Parts: sequence; structure tokens; C-alpha cells
Amino acid sequence: MALASTKRVRIYDVAQAAGVSIATASKALNDTGRMTEETRSRVKAAANSLGFRPNAMARALIQRRTFTVGLLTNDTYGRFTLPLMAGVSEQLVDHGVSVFLCSIEDDPALAKIHVDAMLDKQVDGIIASGKRIDRRLPVDLSQLDIPVVYAFTDGPEDAVTLVSDDYQGSMQAMQWLRELGRSRIVHVTGPQTFASVGERARAYHAVQGGDGLVMHGSWSEAWGHEAVARLWARKGDTPDAIFCGNDQIARGVVDALRERGLDVPGDVSVIGFDNWEIVAAATRPPLTTVDMNLKELGREAGRLVLALAEGKAVEPGVRKLPCQLVVRESCGGGLRS
Amino acid sequence: MALASTKRVRIYDVAQAAGVSIATASKALNDTGRMTEETRSRVKAAANSLGFRPNAMARALIQRRTFTVGLLTNDTYGRFTLPLMAGVSEQLVDHGVSVFLCSIEDDPALAKIHVDAMLDKQVDGIIASGKRIDRRLPVDLSQLDIPVVYAFTDGPEDAVTLVSDDYQGSMQAMQWLRELGRSRIVHVTGPQTFASVGERARAYHAVQGGDGLVMHGSWSEAWGHEAVARLWARKGDTPDAIFCGNDQIARGVVDALRERGLDVPGDVSVIGFDNWEIVAAATRPPLTTVDMNLKELGREAGRLVLALAEGKAVEPGVRKLPCQLVVRESCGGGLRS
Repeated sequence: MALASTKRVRIYDVAQAAGVSIATASKALNDTGRMTEETRSRVKAAANSLGFRPNAMARALIQRRTFTVGLLTNDTYGRFTLPLMAGVSEQLVDHGVSVFLCSIEDDPALAKIHVDAMLDKQVDGIIASGKRIDRRLPVDLSQLDIPVVYAFTDGPEDAVTLVSDDYQGSMQAMQWLRELGRSRIVHVTGPQTFASVGERARAYHAVQGGDGLVMHGSWSEAWGHEAVARLWARKGDTPDAIFCGNDQIARGVVDALRERGLDVPGDVSVIGFDNWEIVAAATRPPLTTVDMNLKELGREAGRLVLALAEGKAVEPGVRKLPCQLVVRESCGGGLRS
Repeated sequence: MALASTKRVRIYDVAQAAGVSIATASKALNDTGRMTEETRSRVKAAANSLGFRPNAMARALIQRRTFTVGLLTNDTYGRFTLPLMAGVSEQLVDHGVSVFLCSIEDDPALAKIHVDAMLDKQVDGIIASGKRIDRRLPVDLSQLDIPVVYAFTDGPEDAVTLVSDDYQGSMQAMQWLRELGRSRIVHVTGPQTFASVGERARAYHAVQGGDGLVMHGSWSEAWGHEAVARLWARKGDTPDAIFCGNDQIARGVVDALRERGLDVPGDVSVIGFDNWEIVAAATRPPLTTVDMNLKELGREAGRLVLALAEGKAVEPGVRKLPCQLVVRESCGGGLRS
């Protein structure tokens, strides 16, 4: 870069002169971060005496300092956290920002240790993330001096919170089944205690009508098998489509239907939820399923925490990000335009 | 604790007086960490003038400072990294140590950014981790001033490296099949380019003899289906046991056998590898499989990086940690004692 060959005083020189790290020097000059007033004054004095020009700040911030964001999660299994983290990283790495992930399980003591470590290491912001959108992490982040964004977990009322739009995603799935001419659609899903289960069922009923059938069970293949056994043991019409609450249930449903000699999608269309590649792609036939776009949700969380760290205004409240139907072979119908 | 109520001068007070963080104060007094000589002298002067007693150091180090370990991984899918991270965290959290995970993909530029961030934040050690034991991360950590431990990835010759013992784990699987009276055992596994595939095949041949059949393909359910189709299309004896290179292959093998009307384990015993709970437990019947004990491997990595950070001697070289056979229902035989 042209800049590197000039004799311009850099933030690096200021940091050296003041005996602090580049990150600390940046924060001192920017009036952000946690440090003693003595340190801040010392850095400013060094900047003055060296003739460090404030209008080099913007470039310096991006090129020289180590910006870090902490990502807290209780999703130790990682199915939701890892795509989210990939999105956060992709978004921030161009700004030279590193993402540190700490796994806190559901343990308040562990959460406190990790949050303290992040504060002590002066991360520039925290993204709090979980495995369901209606549960809070076991730690109160509302009083921190650094920005916090909540992603795929419940946040305080005045916070910036990002969740997937389960209702919209489920509407896409249901409308897709309707467009394919399916009318006897059943919804086989997870436990009623999940807010996302309620949202998905609400969309199901909006399309199928109030007398549609919602069956609750565990988030497992075994429940998919059991639900098919129950449905085909009843008197009367059998379903021509099953909208499942996750891909594991859908996998069980597809296997159970095939083992009854029924053709998927010829006799019954099946849709999953999550687009968990390793399950959805290995199902025979591969699953059409709703993708929550967690990577994009992570990117948005990265954008927002960075904006907050830079002092920009961000409207608080819950933002619902759209899901997307990923069409494979379990419903019939062609590739979606 | 009794300590908290005494008027003893704490590291906290020294840090306050010197205008540095607790971590920096600890490191300054301990002659570790990266900082200017001016900072180190300032901390020591503050400690002297306050009457901070060196023999309180050991307690102070544990109780007051923020010890952090960075975990680098290119396993973005997370199947291997997450249990490893859980083990590292479990081991270190009792010492008040936080673990920061950074995902570097296979991108050298990304790796450099994250390593620089970790150094800038003065982590006390780094654990480098990957998704296979015969590949290096795209970053050279051999010249760092802080300790580095390699876990489930290839490390430099003079480094401390931890890997799972694929040979021993595979011997357990093969001997288990033999004890159950199986003799026509076939090995259906992943690509030949993986060192772990070679180790597992070596154990297979040690038990089955040189003329045993090893079939290489992808790490997928689809390959399990195809391998069964090929085996049952051949002339001559069909296998009475299939030792699979991972749980996904085993899942495909079990499904394919059932669809041919064969009973697992009555007609054919099947063993997987990885003990990937979500696959192994959902297979019908649930898979007997080899667990690489990655959580224990993580614990050991945590123990060793902490020992190195505390200045203790640790013998360099590759340590192979034992795998363990987890017995479910796909082989027959009872619970293992």
C-alpha cells in the first residue's frame, strides 16, 4: 500500500511511545474501551508530541488495531452456533476483526468466568447466541459498557435481537405444498414448549385451516417413524403431505413411508426444517427443507455489533430475518425459480 | 474465602496502582507475557511500594488473573472441534481459565489475523486443532513466545502433539467381532489419502489377515449403500461382519442390509467409527462404534498447555490417546464389561 512508504506517524508509533498495545492506543484516542485515565492521557500526550494526525484515525483503526468480538453460546452441540459464527467471521474479517467463541453451557458460573475474561481482554463487543429463540443465556449482559447483540437467543426488551422468521419460513413451506396440489397436509413437529414450534404451527394453520392436525413429539427420527405409524393406523384419509418441524423428524418420516411401500414424493410429499445438510442431503430422496439462513443472521449480527462499537445508532428491538425454502426431491416439483 | 477478608495487598491493588490490567500485572511480576520493559518495571515498582508479597503470587495467579487459552481450528463443521473444545474448557475452567475459539478455515490470511489477535490479547497459550491428524493448519506457530499444543492435527516434530490411536481403536473393533464369532469381516472405509484410514486398515489386516478386503470410498451414507450392493453382487461368500470407517458409512450399510431383507446383527454385524451420537443412536439398530474420546483429548491438551504456561517441563512428541469401543446393538453381544 502507498501509505506504508510515507513517513506519516502511525498509531503503532503512538502505542510504542506510550508503552501500550495498538488496540489500547486506538481506544484511548477514540475515547472508547476500558483503561485508567492516566493511560488515556499518556497515549494522547504521546500522539500530540509525535504529531499523530487525527484524520489518519479512520485508516489506522481499520489497518492497525486488533478489533475483537466475543461470541457467547450455550449451544455446545454447535448445530446453530457454527453457521452463525461462520457468518459473523465472514462479515468481520474484512475489517480485521477476530471473533472469539466461548462456550458457556447453561452454567451461570461458567458464563461469568468467560464474560469476565472477554471484558478483561477488552473485546469491542459481544454477540450472545443460543440454541433456541425463547430462552436467555444464564448471564446478564445488559449492564456492560460494550455493545451486545443477541442472535438466535432471547434478549432484553431494549436490546438489539436477531431471530429467524419461523412463521414466514413455514408459510413458504406450506404454500409450496399447496402449489404442488397437496391438500391433506399434516404437521409433525417438536415439543409444544418451544416458541418456534408455536410459530411454525401458526403458519401451518393459516394455510391448512383450524382443523388441520399438528402432532407434537421429540426432535428425533424415532418420532418421525412413530408419527407415520399413528397416521396410517387411523381410519379415514391418509395425508398426501407431511410438513415436519425439523430434518431429523423428516428423515424418520421418509424412511417410515418408504418401508410401508409408499413413494416419496409420488404418494406423499415431505418437507423438513433446518436444512441440516448432512441429514437433508443423505435422505432418500433428499429433503426439501426450510433454511433459517443462520449464516446471514450471523453476518447481520456482525454488522450491527460493529456499527454499535463504532458509535453508530442502531434501533433496538427484535428483527426477524427471512428463512428460505431449499428445494430438493422430497416434494416433487422442479427447482424453485 | 478467608483470604478475601484480610487486608493483604492483592494483585488487583498492584494492577490499579500501575494502571494496567490484572493479567498484565500478574505477567509482569511473573516475568512472562509480552509488554514493554517500562510497563514491567512500573508494575514491579508498584508491587514493592504496596508491600505486595511474592508468596501470595501462587494464590493470586489462580484467584485473580484472567488466564486465557486460544483454540485455533479449521474444522468449521465442528464435529471434531466441539467435543475437543468442551474437554479443554472442562479441564481449564476450574483454574479460572477461559478458552477462546477462533475458526480459521484453511485460509492463511484469516489464520494470521486470528493469531495476531490472540497474541495482542495476550492469551497464555494456544491449542491448534483440526479435522484430520495428517494435515497442518495454514499457519506457522512454531516461533511464538507462548506455549502451543497440537490436538487432532499434525504438529512440528519438536512440538507436543495429541492424536487419537486409530490403530488401537480399530483393533478393539476387530477383536470384538472375532469374539462374537465373526470371521468373514470386510472393511468399508474412506479415501486412501487419510492417514487414519491407513491406520484403521492396518489393524483390520492384523486381525483378518493379508487377504482381507478393504473397500475405499467417500465418508458418506451413499458409499455404505453402494458397498453393500457391490458385496452382494459378487460370487462366493458374503460377509458376516462389516467394519466401517465412520458412522455415516455404517448407517448406509445398515440401511442397505435391512432393505435386502438381512438382519443386523443376526445375519451381519456392523461396527462404525466416531460415535457420532446423532447418527449412531438413530441407526436401526443403534450402532456399536469406536469413540475417539475427543473430549478426553481436549482435557489432556488443556492440562498440557497449562503446564507449559506455568513453566513446567513437558516432553515433546506425538502422544496417542486410546479410543474406546461403545457397544450398542449392531453387532450382537451384550454390554461390554
